[in-house]
Amino acid sequence: MTITFGTIIDWLTAGIPAPEQTVDRLETGAPETEVRGIVTAFTASQYVIEQAAALGANLIISHEGVYYSHHDQREQLGNDPVYRQKSALIAEAQISIYRFHDYVHRYTPDGITEGLITALGWQEYVTEHRPAVSLLTLPPMTAREAAEHVKSKLQIAYVRAAGDLSTACRTIGILVGYRGGGQQVIPLYGEEGLDLIIAGEGPEWETPEYVRDALQQGRSKALIMLGHAESEAPGMKLLAERLAAQFPAVPVHFIPERPVFEVI
Amino acid sequence: MTITFGTIIDWLTAGIPAPEQTVDRLETGAPETEVRGIVTAFTASQYVIEQAAALGANLIISHEGVYYSHHDQREQLGNDPVYRQKSALIAEAQISIYRFHDYVHRYTPDGITEGLITALGWQEYVTEHRPAVSLLTLPPMTAREAAEHVKSKLQIAYVRAAGDLSTACRTIGILVGYRGGGQQVIPLYGEEGLDLIIAGEGPEWETPEYVRDALQQGRSKALIMLGHAESEAPGMKLLAERLAAQFPAVPVHFIPERPVFEVI
Repeated sequence: MTITFGTIIDWLTAGIPAPEQTVDRLETGAPETEVRGIVTAFTASQYVIEQAAALGANLIISHEGVYYSHHDQREQLGNDPVYRQKSALIAEAQISIYRFHDYVHRYTPDGITEGLITALGWQEYVTEHRPAVSLLTLPPMTAREAAEHVKSKLQIAYVRAAGDLSTACRTIGILVGYRGGGQQVIPLYGEEGLDLIIAGEGPEWETPEYVRDALQQGRSKALIMLGHAESEAPGMKLLAERLAAQFPAVPVHFIPERPVFEVI
Repeated sequence: MTITFGTIIDWLTAGIPAPEQTVDRLETGAPETEVRGIVTAFTASQYVIEQAAALGANLIISHEGVYYSHHDQREQLGNDPVYRQKSALIAEAQISIYRFHDYVHRYTPDGITEGLITALGWQEYVTEHRPAVSLLTLPPMTAREAAEHVKSKLQIAYVRAAGDLSTACRTIGILVGYRGGGQQVIPLYGEEGLDLIIAGEGPEWETPEYVRDALQQGRSKALIMLGHAESEAPGMKLLAERLAAQFPAVPVHFIPERPVFEVI
C-alpha cells in the first residue's frame, strides 16, 4: 500500500474533534504524494529543512509556523532575503511541510505536554491531565533541584527560574509553549496551591512578577521557564517515535535544534 | 504652593495627545492629595511598595500593571493570597499608584526608550527616533561586545542573545518592552538592513527563529533580548531624575529591582 501525505495526516488527526479554526494544514505539496521520509521538528527552520533534504525526507511535520509567526503572514515578508532564501530551498528540495499544532494539543493528554513529561521521566507522578496543564506530585525536591533535573533530561544549558528555589516543593504544574501567562498560571498557584510551575514561555510582566511578589511575601512558590522550543520539542520527538512505530516502512527522524538563545 | 497628585500627573502628561484608550490612571487616591514623596519603578511590586512606605512616599508611579496584567483584571484574582496581601499593604500604607505607561511611550522621543539609550551612554549615536524604535549607528563592535557593554551599563547579570555574535555590527535598533515581536523587528533586519536589534521581550517563535535562520544562511544578524523589566526600568529612572529637577521640594526615588529571573 502506498503511504501518502494524506495517509499520515489522516492518522495524525484521527478521532480528534476538528478545531473551529486551525493553523494546521499541508503548506506545500498534495495529499496524494507518496511519503519518502518524514522529519518532525519544533519548527521547520533553515537547518531542519537542510537536514530533511540531506536525509531524503519529503515531509516535514512542523509544530510552529515556518515563517516566524503563528498565523501565516508570509505575504508581509515581501522581499525579505531570509524568507526568500528559505522559500527557495523548500521549493528546490521539493519538501512539503505539514503544520501540526492545534490537533496535537487536542490529544488526550495533550501530545506535546506528554512528550515533555516523558522526556523528564515523570509519567508516574502525573495526578491529572487537563487540556492546558498537567498536574504532578513529585517526591519532595527543591525548585533548584527540579531545574537541574530538567536541564539534564532535556540536555539544555540553562533555564530561567524565579521565586523560592530552595524550599522543597511537591505539587507542580507543567504547561508547554506560550501557556506561561498569568491567566493560566496564577490560579494554579493561588486557587490550587501548586508549589512549582514549569512552563515554556509567557509575558514577563505577568506570572514572573506574581512569583516575585510571592517570594517577597515569604511564600514558597517557584517558576521555571524552559523556553518555548525547549518545552515543545520533546513532544515532536515523541511524535516521531509514534510515527515510526505506526509506519515502519517510512524513515522517520526527529531533528533537534540548539536553543535559539545563548546566555551571555 | 501645594503640589498634589494632580500637579504631578498634569506635568507628566502635558502636551501629549491623549491616547484613545489608555491604561494610565490614578489607581487609588484622589488628584487633590498633597504629594509627600514619589517613587518610580518598572512595576509597583511588593518590594517597591514596602520601600515606598519606608521612604514616606505616598505616590508610586508604576510603568506596568500592579496586578500582573497589562489591563487591570484584578477582579479575576478573587481571593488569591498574594493579591490580597499586596492590596492590604497598599491600603494600610495609604500609598497611591499612578499607572504611567501609554503617555511616556508617546513622548518624543519615547521616554522609556530614551531612558535606556541614556543608561547605555549611546545618545550621540542615535540617527533617528521613531515611535517604537530608535536607530543608532555605533562604532563597529561585535554583538557579543555590545552585550557586555549593555550588561555593564545596566548592571545586569546576563542577557539572552541569538544570531551572529562575532561579526562587527554598526547599525542597531533599540526597542523596549514587548516590542521584540516579528512584525516590528523583522522588517528592521530585512528591509532596513540593521545588523543588531536590542529589545526587551517578544514571542520566541518570531524574531529569534528569524535570526536563527539568518545565521544558518550565513548572514550577520544578531539579537539581544534584555528582558522586559531590564529594558524599561532605565526609563523610569530617567523619569525620577526629571521629576526631581522639576519639583525640587518633593523627594523622588527610583526603586530598582533585581532581575525577576535567575539563570540556572
